[in-house]
Amino acid sequence: MKRLIVDMDDVIADATGQFISLYERDFGIRVLRESLNHLEEAILRYVIEPGFFRKMTPNENSQEVLERLNQKYALFIVSAAMEFPLSLSEKQDWLREHFPFLTWKQIVFCGSKSIVHGDYMIDDLPHNLETFNGEKFIYTAPHNLQFDQFQRLNNWNEVAGQFL
Amino acid sequence: MKRLIVDMDDVIADATGQFISLYERDFGIRVLRESLNHLEEAILRYVIEPGFFRKMTPNENSQEVLERLNQKYALFIVSAAMEFPLSLSEKQDWLREHFPFLTWKQIVFCGSKSIVHGDYMIDDLPHNLETFNGEKFIYTAPHNLQFDQFQRLNNWNEVAGQFL
Repeated sequence: MKRLIVDMDDVIADATGQFISLYERDFGIRVLRESLNHLEEAILRYVIEPGFFRKMTPNENSQEVLERLNQKYALFIVSAAMEFPLSLSEKQDWLREHFPFLTWKQIVFCGSKSIVHGDYMIDDLPHNLETFNGEKFIYTAPHNLQFDQFQRLNNWNEVAGQFL
Repeated sequence: MKRLIVDMDDVIADATGQFISLYERDFGIRVLRESLNHLEEAILRYVIEPGFFRKMTPNENSQEVLERLNQKYALFIVSAAMEFPLSLSEKQDWLREHFPFLTWKQIVFCGSKSIVHGDYMIDDLPHNLETFNGEKFIYTAPHNLQFDQFQRLNNWNEVAGQFL
């Protein structure tokens, strides 16, 4: 089986949507998804708020497609979660709820993704893809539209089309 | 810099000593270190006890040697911690206390270590070493004395001799 490495935030989990909701809660303004760069400092502070990672919505179709990918690939969920210590248990609980077919053996929490290797990686952040030894796919998010050096997957239907 | 991957339990942390202490607390018998196979079921139940990972003693000289290794290698601490969900925060806190020179970028919690790659791995469990792509070193523990297919490091002075 080929090894497929899939990111969490803004790939299977709608982190951008979570930022938008919290920003609206605090400032009464609903930011357009297309105009959101989630790396802006004003927004990044939300990730240290308890519940941020636990309450994210799975991205559309990610559950069904990932369950099918899990039959065909050695699937690993790799999240650069170590920067936010509180996120680890939230992310574990979130995965158990929304992706119950995954086992603990398939989960990796790290700081730098340069440590993992495999055949394919799907990630929204160019710096995670850059150090990867296999084939690289960027999953579209508002903050990565300007990067064109990777194969692009715009949604989970496209992931299915590529890998199933 | 060459990448060096170091395990936690029974490599930098004295998990075996922790098993011995808890067994003595419960049964009044101090088991000889040499006769302990920490994979026995009766002992394994201790790892789900809160505080088990937080209260371990660092192995002798591991702190000083690892701090020097951290200057010379791209050092990663990789722990197959995902099986015990409660261990993650305990392990983070433990590392921060005893190895404060490590950053969150150098920590990896996973289920299967087959996902990581690098130049050298030091681990006490043969199945972790078997899937590794680089040079493999077994760190001596009571449960691995019978394995002779790996280069062996008996203590942290020998680690220093090998890598510094």
